Amino acid sequence: MNGAEALMRTFVDAGTDVCFMNPGTSEMHFVAALDRVPEMRGVLTLFEGVATGAADGYGRIAGRPAVALLHLGPGLGNGIANLHNARRARTPLVTVVGEHATFHQRFDAPLQSDIAALAGPVSGWVRTVAGVAGVGADTADAIAAARGGCVATLIVPADVSWSEGAAVAPLPPAPAPSTVDADRVAAAAKALRSSRAALLLGGAALREPGLLAAARAAAVTGARVLGETFPARLERGAGLPPLERIAYLPELAAQQLGGLETIVLAGAKAPVTFFGYPDTPSQPAPPGCEILAFAAPGEDVVGALAALAAEVGAGGRVDLAPVALAPAARPEAPTGRLDAGSFAAAVAATLPEDTIVVDEANTSGVGVPAATAGAPRHDLLALTGGSIGQGPPVAVGAAVAAPGRPVLNLQADGSALYTLQAWWTQAREGLDVTTVVLNNRSYAILHYELSRVGAAGDGDRARAMLNLTDPVPDHVSLARGMGLPAERAQTADDLVRLLRQAYAEPGPHLIEAVL
Amino acid sequence: MNGAEALMRTFVDAGTDVCFMNPGTSEMHFVAALDRVPEMRGVLTLFEGVATGAADGYGRIAGRPAVALLHLGPGLGNGIANLHNARRARTPLVTVVGEHATFHQRFDAPLQSDIAALAGPVSGWVRTVAGVAGVGADTADAIAAARGGCVATLIVPADVSWSEGAAVAPLPPAPAPSTVDADRVAAAAKALRSSRAALLLGGAALREPGLLAAARAAAVTGARVLGETFPARLERGAGLPPLERIAYLPELAAQQLGGLETIVLAGAKAPVTFFGYPDTPSQPAPPGCEILAFAAPGEDVVGALAALAAEVGAGGRVDLAPVALAPAARPEAPTGRLDAGSFAAAVAATLPEDTIVVDEANTSGVGVPAATAGAPRHDLLALTGGSIGQGPPVAVGAAVAAPGRPVLNLQADGSALYTLQAWWTQAREGLDVTTVVLNNRSYAILHYELSRVGAAGDGDRARAMLNLTDPVPDHVSLARGMGLPAERAQTADDLVRLLRQAYAEPGPHLIEAVL
Repeated sequence: MNGAEALMRTFVDAGTDVCFMNPGTSEMHFVAALDRVPEMRGVLTLFEGVATGAADGYGRIAGRPAVALLHLGPGLGNGIANLHNARRARTPLVTVVGEHATFHQRFDAPLQSDIAALAGPVSGWVRTVAGVAGVGADTADAIAAARGGCVATLIVPADVSWSEGAAVAPLPPAPAPSTVDADRVAAAAKALRSSRAALLLGGAALREPGLLAAARAAAVTGARVLGETFPARLERGAGLPPLERIAYLPELAAQQLGGLETIVLAGAKAPVTFFGYPDTPSQPAPPGCEILAFAAPGEDVVGALAALAAEVGAGGRVDLAPVALAPAARPEAPTGRLDAGSFAAAVAATLPEDTIVVDEANTSGVGVPAATAGAPRHDLLALTGGSIGQGPPVAVGAAVAAPGRPVLNLQADGSALYTLQAWWTQAREGLDVTTVVLNNRSYAILHYELSRVGAAGDGDRARAMLNLTDPVPDHVSLARGMGLPAERAQTADDLVRLLRQAYAEPGPHLIEAVL
Repeated sequence: MNGAEALMRTFVDAGTDVCFMNPGTSEMHFVAALDRVPEMRGVLTLFEGVATGAADGYGRIAGRPAVALLHLGPGLGNGIANLHNARRARTPLVTVVGEHATFHQRFDAPLQSDIAALAGPVSGWVRTVAGVAGVGADTADAIAAARGGCVATLIVPADVSWSEGAAVAPLPPAPAPSTVDADRVAAAAKALRSSRAALLLGGAALREPGLLAAARAAAVTGARVLGETFPARLERGAGLPPLERIAYLPELAAQQLGGLETIVLAGAKAPVTFFGYPDTPSQPAPPGCEILAFAAPGEDVVGALAALAAEVGAGGRVDLAPVALAPAARPEAPTGRLDAGSFAAAVAATLPEDTIVVDEANTSGVGVPAATAGAPRHDLLALTGGSIGQGPPVAVGAAVAAPGRPVLNLQADGSALYTLQAWWTQAREGLDVTTVVLNNRSYAILHYELSRVGAAGDGDRARAMLNLTDPVPDHVSLARGMGLPAERAQTADDLVRLLRQAYAEPGPHLIEAVL
């Protein structure tokens, strides 16, 4: 068996059976192996940022890693932005990067570069396969590392792929996540009871068991529950405890946290503003507020929250501590002018049960969380690392991971243009993704940020760098060029009708909403 | 003066007055500074790979650096593939990467990452500005480093940009390129005279003075003259010495070099195959062939060639050593079926004088060099680093650098889809770029490579990863979506007509040639 086949079979045996890929010459043996390992599904993307973003979306929904197969240093480079988001999401994800044959590397051929150096900043684990005998075991180690919640990058020289003598390796047993000890539970319980406190939830705490345990603990103690700003995966909607997320804008965040004496971290990091600004503190928590490290990301956060609920007397049963759950409620389908408000209402009025919402709506999506709070239950996948162009690729991966569920990608226009190649993969794979591109013809967030940083002199030449005008991109034409059915919504009525149509038909659809 | 303005003014004073940019929050002060430094031209791109590729194209044509302004680590990540190409082209290029404010970095906010680590593999020079007092001098140092023929990356924390107390700095004097000494000239002359030898030209040797000096030396000694496979900038066409470039395919390259006893390197590296293959040597030169390091890239290669020509008795005058120059000759405008042959003929039959040809045609462009050998004089910019998606951005930069010259981008379809965002910038800036997208509905080179590496089992599942079908991208729709006038050529007649129209009208045009 050659190295490429052993790698593919090791992945399949470990339950990693999807490979998002942009192969080149140094990866041709992996491509060839697809015909001998039919259990591995190869999904072609037209750009590496789509492959890595799709693997991120897949990992967030499936809870196990997909592979992103990339071509040498430049291919990895193209994938870095979405690997950055995956790193911040703690998504299990393996990147396999083909490298020149070992004997070829000393000649510094045109595509040679330092792959490991590029991989470092976005990876929790990096290894170059030393020889064909070890490729199976190295692959298994990469999967194991990724399952711990990181990007694992495996660099595979071409002669390792094509040489015979490789063997499939079993996955090493997964270590249990470290548990939060009784002292930390007691300290958190004391903080909730004896101070004006908030539990700040992130990561694994944002699904039903964690949300319920936190809500119980809060109900008994009078503490508040908050969520991190950009969750990797948040379960929300009717029948779940509603969650107030910390705002993006520093002033709003400071307002939300005002008066708190303790913030108890459960799977979240200490609150920090997205950017540093002149004369604005980087930490929005009030001065003197204690930040209590209760359960770190990667620890057994849900177990810790259950223990905390028990410690404060909320126990494991909902009836012991009545928890407010979001009532089923959604707005009427809006009519008339299309703006941020009617857009949010249209989304909320039509959202199907069990949708995966991939949210990169940015400024135009500001009304969506409130409008959908009582919508049918859904998952929300947010822009974890701030690196734009995440939405369309993540939608690809989420749809591949959950073929029975609708996927709705709410997508800012400027960000969509970073990875519009994802439309093609959605079309080719017939994925059930509905995309709404919010065309406001600008990097709207940057108009805000330009004033926010106190930048003087923001005249016409500066503004021209923030506007998507002259010409205005036509997202319908772009999507159709990628083979995707696409329509334009000029009014709220249009948007409601097109959303309903898209949900009713299988396969991908794109709607350009002109705001 | 704040740091952003001092940086901008230092660039302008040094003659670097174009900034291709994808700014984000941490770069807002640079954007604001555009209104106070009107000499700096800001060119917005929709994706960082367009900004870095455009700066590459600009540097190759202008001979002095442009700036690519990028947003934090992920923005740099998106620019890496085309920085890799620029590095291989030895293009003078400065990347300015905005970083979080210094006081903000310790909080590990979502967009934080190790920018310097990412920059390393593609940069010849990397520095993080330590404080506002030094930003002018650091900028000058970056420009000086870039002028030596590399990517210089300057990382600028946001508080450096916004703080007052900065000063413009003058450019340090440029060191003269090191000259090739008499011993090396004598050794090269001896090799040309006494062995079956070829001069292998690269880099600066590929423009008229170097080509003429090499041709003279060869005419006197009977040596051959060869060129590197993928030149950064090659002057060619009627009235210039024709240049045989080393072939991409290893077998063809070995055939070209067969029988040589010495290869004399003048601005080129020793020949190496693009990839390593089983049972194929990485070096196509025949065994025992001496590789003589005559003039290295970065040395005074043209001066060395002139000295060599004098040493062998060719002197400085053409009439002392009659040199064969390419006669003016071009094919009739083709009619009928559109294939690689008629495509090449159409290009050659219509090429305007003084065109800059940006060649990323890959497999479909195989006939172009021969067909255009006697076409009006033109510059050829090739895919130096093998990282695809170079063509459309490089065309942007070339057109900005040379507003009076037509730019023709011959562009493979799969590669075009990597950086199609460049069409928008071409439209916005009204650049005189004509693009021909060669739609063969596949990564054709990879079909070849799949068989080339001896990969077994290349059945339907493998082939599906190499075909751009189901759906076939519609490049006319994509270009129009970006605001670019676009038409489709189904026949050679169509292509000739559309090329002539495009050349006759100002501004950008795209032609999809269906092969």
